[in-house]
Amino acid sequence: MIIPSVPYPAPRAAAAASGPTVAIDIGGTKIAGALVHPDGTMTATTRRPTPRGADADGVMAAVAEVVADLSESPVWASAVRCGIGSAGPVDTSRGTVSPVNIGAWREFPVQERVVAELAARGADLPTVLAGDGVAMTAAEHWLGAARGHANALCMVVSTGVGGGLILNNQIHPGPTGNAGHIGHISVAFDGEPCACGGHGCVESIASGTAIARWALEQGWTPAGTPDGASGASGGRERDATAAGVAAAAAEGDPIALAAFDRAGRALAAAIAATATLVETDIAVIGGGVAAAGDTLFAPIRSHLAAYATLSFAQDIQVVPAMLGTHAGLIGAAAAATMLLPAPPASA
Amino acid sequence: MIIPSVPYPAPRAAAAASGPTVAIDIGGTKIAGALVHPDGTMTATTRRPTPRGADADGVMAAVAEVVADLSESPVWASAVRCGIGSAGPVDTSRGTVSPVNIGAWREFPVQERVVAELAARGADLPTVLAGDGVAMTAAEHWLGAARGHANALCMVVSTGVGGGLILNNQIHPGPTGNAGHIGHISVAFDGEPCACGGHGCVESIASGTAIARWALEQGWTPAGTPDGASGASGGRERDATAAGVAAAAAEGDPIALAAFDRAGRALAAAIAATATLVETDIAVIGGGVAAAGDTLFAPIRSHLAAYATLSFAQDIQVVPAMLGTHAGLIGAAAAATMLLPAPPASA
Repeated sequence: MIIPSVPYPAPRAAAAASGPTVAIDIGGTKIAGALVHPDGTMTATTRRPTPRGADADGVMAAVAEVVADLSESPVWASAVRCGIGSAGPVDTSRGTVSPVNIGAWREFPVQERVVAELAARGADLPTVLAGDGVAMTAAEHWLGAARGHANALCMVVSTGVGGGLILNNQIHPGPTGNAGHIGHISVAFDGEPCACGGHGCVESIASGTAIARWALEQGWTPAGTPDGASGASGGRERDATAAGVAAAAAEGDPIALAAFDRAGRALAAAIAATATLVETDIAVIGGGVAAAGDTLFAPIRSHLAAYATLSFAQDIQVVPAMLGTHAGLIGAAAAATMLLPAPPASA
Repeated sequence: MIIPSVPYPAPRAAAAASGPTVAIDIGGTKIAGALVHPDGTMTATTRRPTPRGADADGVMAAVAEVVADLSESPVWASAVRCGIGSAGPVDTSRGTVSPVNIGAWREFPVQERVVAELAARGADLPTVLAGDGVAMTAAEHWLGAARGHANALCMVVSTGVGGGLILNNQIHPGPTGNAGHIGHISVAFDGEPCACGGHGCVESIASGTAIARWALEQGWTPAGTPDGASGASGGRERDATAAGVAAAAAEGDPIALAAFDRAGRALAAAIAATATLVETDIAVIGGGVAAAGDTLFAPIRSHLAAYATLSFAQDIQVVPAMLGTHAGLIGAAAAATMLLPAPPASA
């Protein structure tokens, strides 16, 4: 993560409400919290592992502990709002979440429950719920690679593919908070079924899972190329994941290169579709697969011209995300700041 | 066209500015004008054929004649704004248009020229330029099938495929006025080249031109089915256009049915992609191919479930457009009303 060394303006109306934002980031592995200040710095960071095998209240108990930790900060009383970022799907119109990787929560009223925990700690704060793709997008627009871009697509390419949109300098969550779900648009209407029930979804072609699966299907073997054609000198251990495919690609393995080329083409088509549909001028990509760097970015960029053809879409940039592991907390705070009216008011 | 028989509210701030909007609709065949009133009625309608073989000023002269006609209306002096709808591409950031089907205009400063014509007729009006897809969308949101929908995709499926977006109850033209160009998003990243330079564009699969071409390639003949398998009783003359394919499909011709099924699948994928990306809940389809009715709408609707899979996208409706030939004028007025600040101010 890049910790800003100079103060940045808050996403909106910082001057009107200069206290910190209570940020909570809920994922399948951990539940994190922090107080995020208008200059982008964080204090009182805390986390709990996401409980395994617990029921809905058991998972919520970990969230309550995070809130309790934050309430011990000396600046707790000056907090002005709360942002909750959560793995999706979310339904912000009802304040509920049904995270794929938190099975105990189905349509769980996390917003109402967090508001109650805040109130129990003396903080009646306006509170916003955002999906993790929307939160990551708000973070990159505030402090990261989408800064200064009025219309941006931000994506996470990892085991899945998610994202969010900035339109007219505002986050565009849509009525239920799910806008930006670029992993499940189809770039191959005649394509293979996706786990979601769709066909030819970006995620089913370009996720880390899909890259590794396709490479294995084409004969790539984690321990080395099967035919030696790539001249890989071997020896170094490889793993059967997208990271393993990326390492092989970096050594010139043709199947591994083809796997990233195919993923890059699907991502280029999706990025171009977004630019053509809503006039985004930048695509910011984070997540584990993006860590492969040019192995992923070079094919995306080289294929863009084959999809982003109209004059207003041709100049779209594709760049790596700047915020790392703390994007979720920064993003929860940024989304709350963007989506709430400027002067703090009761929820 | 449906002429509203009861007064409708103007798109925004009708009460604040109750005079008519000067509407100009520029297409490859005709240049039309009208005064569009806050209740959606039109007066002083006029039109000129789009000059063929004329230079840029020659085409502009026809626009000037339309403005001159309008200025003879007894209510000309009460006009509060002007909306120009034009075939695209447009660049609203510069007020220019380069319509594919008006070769004499390339980056032609139509907005500035219209403002000058208005001024020459005593009308200093704030003026907005919109692409025809955006204008049609504004019209359907004001008085047509997208009325009451905060987030809508409107499309024209004709010789080409165009469109526009309503997001958060506002038209979303994007920085250059080209957002909603759904005809040139790819639904087949491995697909055939499109005239735009892209691959697998919706337009290259689902436009009227594409439907007729594909049917002919598959062996459909305008005069009747080649093998008689459909049981078409023949005799009636067919034409080698999408309308001819639609007529054959209505008689059960299997190739014609397959052509509309394929187009419907591509459109379903694109409509679902839009719903997944920006959370639209309705898709309104107009244009010549949509006149085929259920021949087009039935396959779109039947294939939607294979693409619109996520909970927030599953309920998307697909309906025919309600405004017909005058959608361009109504839309130019609606776009201007939506995009200009509520109280009339000088441009």
